[in-house]
Amino acid sequence: MKAEIMAVGTELLLGDILNTNAQFLAQELANLGIEVYYQTVVGDNPKRLKDTIFHAFDRADLIITTGGLGPTEDDLTKETAAEYFGEKLVLDERALGRIKKYFDRTGRTMTQNNVKQAMVPENNCTVLYNDNGTAPGIIMEKNGKMIVMLPGPPKETIPMFRNQVKPYLVKKQEFTFVSRILRVAGVGESAMEDRVKDIIDAQTNPTIAPYAKDGEAILRITAKAKDEAEANELIDPVAELLKERLGNAVYAEGETDMETVVAEMLLERKLTVAVAESCTGGMIASRLVEYPGISAALLEGCVTYSNDAKMHRLGVKAETLEKYTAVSEETAREMAEGIAKTSGADIGIATTGIAGPDGGSEEKPVGLVYIGLSYKGKTEVQEHHFVGKRDKIRERATYTALDWLRRAMLDEE
Amino acid sequence: MKAEIMAVGTELLLGDILNTNAQFLAQELANLGIEVYYQTVVGDNPKRLKDTIFHAFDRADLIITTGGLGPTEDDLTKETAAEYFGEKLVLDERALGRIKKYFDRTGRTMTQNNVKQAMVPENNCTVLYNDNGTAPGIIMEKNGKMIVMLPGPPKETIPMFRNQVKPYLVKKQEFTFVSRILRVAGVGESAMEDRVKDIIDAQTNPTIAPYAKDGEAILRITAKAKDEAEANELIDPVAELLKERLGNAVYAEGETDMETVVAEMLLERKLTVAVAESCTGGMIASRLVEYPGISAALLEGCVTYSNDAKMHRLGVKAETLEKYTAVSEETAREMAEGIAKTSGADIGIATTGIAGPDGGSEEKPVGLVYIGLSYKGKTEVQEHHFVGKRDKIRERATYTALDWLRRAMLDEE
Repeated sequence: MKAEIMAVGTELLLGDILNTNAQFLAQELANLGIEVYYQTVVGDNPKRLKDTIFHAFDRADLIITTGGLGPTEDDLTKETAAEYFGEKLVLDERALGRIKKYFDRTGRTMTQNNVKQAMVPENNCTVLYNDNGTAPGIIMEKNGKMIVMLPGPPKETIPMFRNQVKPYLVKKQEFTFVSRILRVAGVGESAMEDRVKDIIDAQTNPTIAPYAKDGEAILRITAKAKDEAEANELIDPVAELLKERLGNAVYAEGETDMETVVAEMLLERKLTVAVAESCTGGMIASRLVEYPGISAALLEGCVTYSNDAKMHRLGVKAETLEKYTAVSEETAREMAEGIAKTSGADIGIATTGIAGPDGGSEEKPVGLVYIGLSYKGKTEVQEHHFVGKRDKIRERATYTALDWLRRAMLDEE
Repeated sequence: MKAEIMAVGTELLLGDILNTNAQFLAQELANLGIEVYYQTVVGDNPKRLKDTIFHAFDRADLIITTGGLGPTEDDLTKETAAEYFGEKLVLDERALGRIKKYFDRTGRTMTQNNVKQAMVPENNCTVLYNDNGTAPGIIMEKNGKMIVMLPGPPKETIPMFRNQVKPYLVKKQEFTFVSRILRVAGVGESAMEDRVKDIIDAQTNPTIAPYAKDGEAILRITAKAKDEAEANELIDPVAELLKERLGNAVYAEGETDMETVVAEMLLERKLTVAVAESCTGGMIASRLVEYPGISAALLEGCVTYSNDAKMHRLGVKAETLEKYTAVSEETAREMAEGIAKTSGADIGIATTGIAGPDGGSEEKPVGLVYIGLSYKGKTEVQEHHFVGKRDKIRERATYTALDWLRRAMLDEE
């Protein structure tokens, strides 16, 4: 099955919004093993929309559209598709009832225009009822051609695709493709690839693809099978083999992020932590606070940006700052010990570094960051050299500090 | 001039990357007054690429492509465009010299493949030399049709468009469109619109468009004129009128963000600040630290997540926490006063609230946030109710606290 992804909306042509739906649908179709040869964006213009849909059906079996299902006269996706298939639109009472209920629930007033949203093709049509908005989606299918019309807002598009369209398409496919992601921290993409190259080369189903995303190394394992259960059976032993080889470097599967992994580990182990941040400036604390319920583990954080704050909040010694400067192994050590001691936490983490763009020197260049970890009374310091702009250096330092905390908890076991 | 935006690359069809270039180019072309009717994505496939370029020229005068200029055999944008225009490719010595230099500078080894990147059409061609990568861009123009070929990575695409393509296109246009953005804080989109509705309705050139982006209210003023200077002359008085009407609510023009405005105001006024954060958990400090040179103004931050930290770091009284709880006007007041006093800063800011998803009650629901501001010894507390998920509530609280600090500095004058 060859597919085409089509977004309908003048706001995309003006650049007012970013077409994230295209990426979402592209990934989903790739996972289903459905080939996509083209993506198109067309405005809310009757002639051009018609040309685009008709032209797309010359080269594809399946078109997935987003947008153009709204209540205004401009919204014509459904009308144009019905024209292609030679169907007329009729009122769907169930869709209308749901639209009315949606307006009641959100306390807004339904207009006559919204009735248009409840019109659906009379035949060869599956209505996709919308739990997150007013416009129902539509699947039309006839003579080996299929169009799936989804609403434009991602909060409506994504659940409608996942819950209703995906199962529909899976049934049509002889094979399904299932992917699993392993997230790797503290090892670069090429170093990771080197370590598992023999495993990658030996595999055909599932395949293993290494790549880098937002500075993180990732392994994607993709299996082709007749159903999801069979695919997972193929993936499981390969995932285990990779995890065994990479050890602690694999920190999560799927979409879990580093702060979630660290927060859950802290809570499971009933460990408390406190953070003293200079160059990261509150970012480590802020990431941890993103996890609901972290209050049981995170006692406090100190953004000790000035030397004075390092001394009076954490007890860093004046002579340490004078002799070694604020960005030094010694200061990082005293900060980590100081925050653990003054907060009473099991673990103290500290960062001090030069995030740039100014303030670097030959001896201490921009990107130099010392991370201190005081773990139940034992303190160590790591020296790192991060590259990139100020925000990237701070993000890398935050990520690396959280990863070290994760590894320290694992090492203790 | 009718234009079409085209991205070339299989990685987009697989959803591995998001097509941010399309949005960037769409905005830039809209600002130039060039109409875009279609955006297309096509893979690295010779036949489909050729079909797509030839088809696009049936309906557009100008095609702007991104991607497909790399060194591999798959990269065929230039070859296909040359075929359309009936031109052959020849070696451009200057482009080759620059590619060699680029490899020298980045310490990598140039391969024979990279010579392909220095091949350019023999006639009707303008070479766009690339300061940020190896692939030069190309403009070809013949018989009223034009193609602009840009490299794929946004860090190469964006500067090449802005510095080389935009001036080229401006010369072709009879009119230019210039937009200026006013950023408005502390007023919702519809309230803002109400306050300036008469000004909006009275304007035809420039036009004024109110909209909301990431929870912020924005006014976009767009003038049509023969050049940028004339457009700015049209915009200036309208911008002044809007700023007069909206007063302190307008916090910046263009792409400046709130933390930059606040950081610059603090530094200009030689004011020092310290932050005590509970629900925002380091986010306010982290935002301020994003500004290089903030160390002269930001003395420190305390993420006093636990009651214990609120007491021992800030001197919040045990009886206050007991009687009014941690999320209360009284606690916010003592936190703001406490951080100002213990840090010696001119200004203390404090936040305490319920970011959710749990922890809310009828009396104190999720989204309730108290912000305290102690400004040179005078302390006030605001009660806010933010909506959204945990991260949104924290972001809104951070933004609102920074905006209050900005307004307090303005009020003092």
